[in-house]
Amino acid sequence: MATSLPPGLLVAPDPDAPGLTARVDATDQDGAPIALDVVEERPLTIYLNAREVVTAMTVRDHPRWLALGFLANQGMLRPSDRVTGTDYDDELGVVVVRTAQVTDHEAKLARATRTSGCAVGTVFGDMMDGVADVVLPRLDVRLSDLRALSSAIARTPSLYLSAGAVHGTCLCRGPEPLAYFEDVGRHNAVDKLAGWMRVTGTDPSDKTLFTTGRLTSEMVIKCALMGIPALVSRSGFTAWGVRIARDVGLTVVGRLKGSRFQCVAGADRLVRDVP
Amino acid sequence: MATSLPPGLLVAPDPDAPGLTARVDATDQDGAPIALDVVEERPLTIYLNAREVVTAMTVRDHPRWLALGFLANQGMLRPSDRVTGTDYDDELGVVVVRTAQVTDHEAKLARATRTSGCAVGTVFGDMMDGVADVVLPRLDVRLSDLRALSSAIARTPSLYLSAGAVHGTCLCRGPEPLAYFEDVGRHNAVDKLAGWMRVTGTDPSDKTLFTTGRLTSEMVIKCALMGIPALVSRSGFTAWGVRIARDVGLTVVGRLKGSRFQCVAGADRLVRDVP
Repeated sequence: MATSLPPGLLVAPDPDAPGLTARVDATDQDGAPIALDVVEERPLTIYLNAREVVTAMTVRDHPRWLALGFLANQGMLRPSDRVTGTDYDDELGVVVVRTAQVTDHEAKLARATRTSGCAVGTVFGDMMDGVADVVLPRLDVRLSDLRALSSAIARTPSLYLSAGAVHGTCLCRGPEPLAYFEDVGRHNAVDKLAGWMRVTGTDPSDKTLFTTGRLTSEMVIKCALMGIPALVSRSGFTAWGVRIARDVGLTVVGRLKGSRFQCVAGADRLVRDVP
Repeated sequence: MATSLPPGLLVAPDPDAPGLTARVDATDQDGAPIALDVVEERPLTIYLNAREVVTAMTVRDHPRWLALGFLANQGMLRPSDRVTGTDYDDELGVVVVRTAQVTDHEAKLARATRTSGCAVGTVFGDMMDGVADVVLPRLDVRLSDLRALSSAIARTPSLYLSAGAVHGTCLCRGPEPLAYFEDVGRHNAVDKLAGWMRVTGTDPSDKTLFTTGRLTSEMVIKCALMGIPALVSRSGFTAWGVRIARDVGLTVVGRLKGSRFQCVAGADRLVRDVP
């Protein structure tokens, strides 16, 4: 398959960037030597001001966007929180997101550590609470656009094509891919996108999120919290993800393969403009 | 493909068990109505004694084994910790693992919350420290066994066959699948297995771990910490996973499709007994 960069793409994978892949000597089924390009995952520890929040295994192409997007998608960083800087140390594998004021999350953690412990488990509850208020704008989704996007994304040079073992996520408008991220963790790819959208002030209301990963509840919640009204994947669904999508008005198309797919939410918003 | 239960299988998926899947109304690419069986993921909060540790989104078929295996694989529960009970409340979605004495992990958390915060990030460091001492026993892996396992596992009734969107992990001995677990999270499936192995006292030294997921560093570390000397997957690799596997003497076969595969570690332990 010939690869080419779609013209409207603002952020694209760079499979040739140093440090993203390594050459590994291996053997095939017959014992013959083969050289594989394999993706490099490296630990990245994310701080919110002085608070250590998480260590993620990640492809280190966009550590600052990953940190911002992770904190935003977890509800730890609110839209109203003013970010004064993101400091990244490649050698230490640390990124620190700094805000003008102490965040609600830090205040909550300070309370939680005085009472029941680590409060890790509260994060999921916070995400669920956040999504309860979401009502997404109505967006018509043309099947011709889905077909064009599927083809354009598959032909874009990527870590997936050169090394495999990564998930991809691409923000799209109509038939055009706009910003394409990859990572060993499918959530990291979405978080990088969320960070990029926050930094660039990208309007989500007319966008579609393409992803290679499964459409679990957490993926649906992230898409809804990011304000993106359509979610499309090559992979399948979970029941809770479907319920949340229907509650918030998210159009969900999965198991997209060639011209075939399954739509579990928002089928009335699909525009069937191809035979 | 006809499904059948391999004779030696001690634990098998039960796709017909209540609560594991839901029927969802959907439409196909032509707008025709279809009924999908979709996997149910539900939150499960794991406690170690009075400490809330994590909330995982999981298929709730084996919550106790999941909790035990998660805590063991994270190094929070040591082999020497005596477990006095695992209490599971299905309605609350809570499982509490109780030990006779306070664990090192609880003591560490009590220290950490007094200093730098939540100590979530230390967990990965603990896992890496744990694997540094591992030297796995030498196990010859027959290609005929890999082929038999691949076929037997693919024919076993499973959530994957009935609903999709899950990962599977199966502990095997020679050509025989022994214990097969599935989950929306690939790590949850491995953690359920780890819990089962702990409860049953299963010897890992002559076993092979089959998984559908990618062989990331965390998957390699878990396999090594569980003492299993061979790891096989349909999916690909990451560079750090390969390095760790070579350090600990883990045989790693990936991208297994039919008779084709790639071996990135321990090729000298493969027994090429099929053409």
